[in-house]
Amino acid sequence: MRDFSKGHEWLSINTATIRKQHGAEVPLDRIIDQCAERGIRAISPWRDQVAAVGIDKIARQLKAHGIGLSGYCRGGFFPAPDAAGLQAALDDNRRAIDEAKLLGAPCLVLVVGALPGALDGKALYKDIGRARGEVRDGIAASLEYAGQVGLPLAIEPLHPMQAADRACINTLEHALDLCDELDPSRSGMLGVALDIYHVWWDPKLQQQIARAGKERLLAYHVCDWLTPTRDLLSDRGMMGDGVVELKKVRGWVEGAGFAGFSEVEIFSVFDWWKRAGEETLDICIERHRTVV
Amino acid sequence: MRDFSKGHEWLSINTATIRKQHGAEVPLDRIIDQCAERGIRAISPWRDQVAAVGIDKIARQLKAHGIGLSGYCRGGFFPAPDAAGLQAALDDNRRAIDEAKLLGAPCLVLVVGALPGALDGKALYKDIGRARGEVRDGIAASLEYAGQVGLPLAIEPLHPMQAADRACINTLEHALDLCDELDPSRSGMLGVALDIYHVWWDPKLQQQIARAGKERLLAYHVCDWLTPTRDLLSDRGMMGDGVVELKKVRGWVEGAGFAGFSEVEIFSVFDWWKRAGEETLDICIERHRTVV
Repeated sequence: MRDFSKGHEWLSINTATIRKQHGAEVPLDRIIDQCAERGIRAISPWRDQVAAVGIDKIARQLKAHGIGLSGYCRGGFFPAPDAAGLQAALDDNRRAIDEAKLLGAPCLVLVVGALPGALDGKALYKDIGRARGEVRDGIAASLEYAGQVGLPLAIEPLHPMQAADRACINTLEHALDLCDELDPSRSGMLGVALDIYHVWWDPKLQQQIARAGKERLLAYHVCDWLTPTRDLLSDRGMMGDGVVELKKVRGWVEGAGFAGFSEVEIFSVFDWWKRAGEETLDICIERHRTVV
Repeated sequence: MRDFSKGHEWLSINTATIRKQHGAEVPLDRIIDQCAERGIRAISPWRDQVAAVGIDKIARQLKAHGIGLSGYCRGGFFPAPDAAGLQAALDDNRRAIDEAKLLGAPCLVLVVGALPGALDGKALYKDIGRARGEVRDGIAASLEYAGQVGLPLAIEPLHPMQAADRACINTLEHALDLCDELDPSRSGMLGVALDIYHVWWDPKLQQQIARAGKERLLAYHVCDWLTPTRDLLSDRGMMGDGVVELKKVRGWVEGAGFAGFSEVEIFSVFDWWKRAGEETLDICIERHRTVV
């Protein structure tokens, strides 16, 4: 296992972590400068943050700072109640792939979607098996285009508490089954983004990480699980503040061949989003070196 | 599949569903009277509710009304930071088994516990593998006593969002693996309490229900998953108000041989616990006949 104690060359910041500072939205170009000031070598930005500043400007800024991407957030949300909706999702994923390619991302992270309308509290259907079928078809279609472009897709299994509204792929095993179905040759074009927040509880985690192997492990995200957790989406903890065995799991991930960035992704409406971005980043670096 | 539309003979009320009425705690003897008034044939009471009134009084009241139990809540919480704590948990589970037997329960429901201290926000250790080992050992020891008494134990897999603080058995597959390890002969003394709230999201649900079979399916709990869900413990929905495919899953459960009660268990700090118990019960009956 790599020794992170000496520095933070393998730290990446998912820009959602400091998208709010002192409770207010902060533009991505400012976030990139804050990362650059600390010698952070990689980020994973969100599409809406990129669009708000302009993708060409962001691409130039990243290049000027020598900052790379550990992923691009996000494609997915494939299920829809009708054919027009399914097609619109495919079109949007194609644009996401193009953006990821332009920015030099190693993968597009897929939050695959679930019951259409559920995110607005009004599920248009309840058949999660149907949603899973639409996800499979959507990934298959997107994978074809991704292969042409040369931009790998990373399915992110989301915590089961988000199965209704955000992603109906909810375990690493489930994601890997889908990878094996759609990419049996392990081409490197389809894999997973493993976010410890979503999978830490899984009794099959170690076994499935070993199964995934280097070809399927396209991204690794860290934060921590707080007790109590007060919100199903935005109450993630800073590494070390919760109950996740971070070093143990990183050992499994690296044992399977992963040698990429450890990407910090914290949604925190009660705590970190209220603080100064500089403070949050400094603590991310310190925790990366000590507990990740 | 049984036709529930004609009546509610297979409805059971988990007494947590109306433990609060108009926002205030209601004693179990009052709850039992409310159920009896509606011809409800079974309940599943909680130990603290029974103790508050007195177990002998409750036993007499149930007998007078001809009301049976569909389960007894609850044993479990096996993990502990030291040997004294582990022994105390075993002793407490022995008492729970005795109480369940005295009340004529068909099973004792086990919420197995997780990281000791996590429920109070201060996990005494983080090794969920250790907690799972302590759970295994605790069930093995309790099973020996349960077998002597003739009182089956029902492991309740809890939703992964409760893996840190309430139960580290989080999928039906995980629970059945443990059953097979500790009771390979499928004696009928060890099985599962399948609560749809905890398992509805699982892509392996249908397969694992079939695997469980009649000998392992000791209890079946219903409610619904709301979107949004505002609290990790107490924001369950009334059947029909959420996204769970209730009839589909009951079809799987009955297809596997289950022919017992459909037990309503709703923790609802924002809605049902604020209402009159009579209203909640009447709606439970109506939904049991129409959507369960």
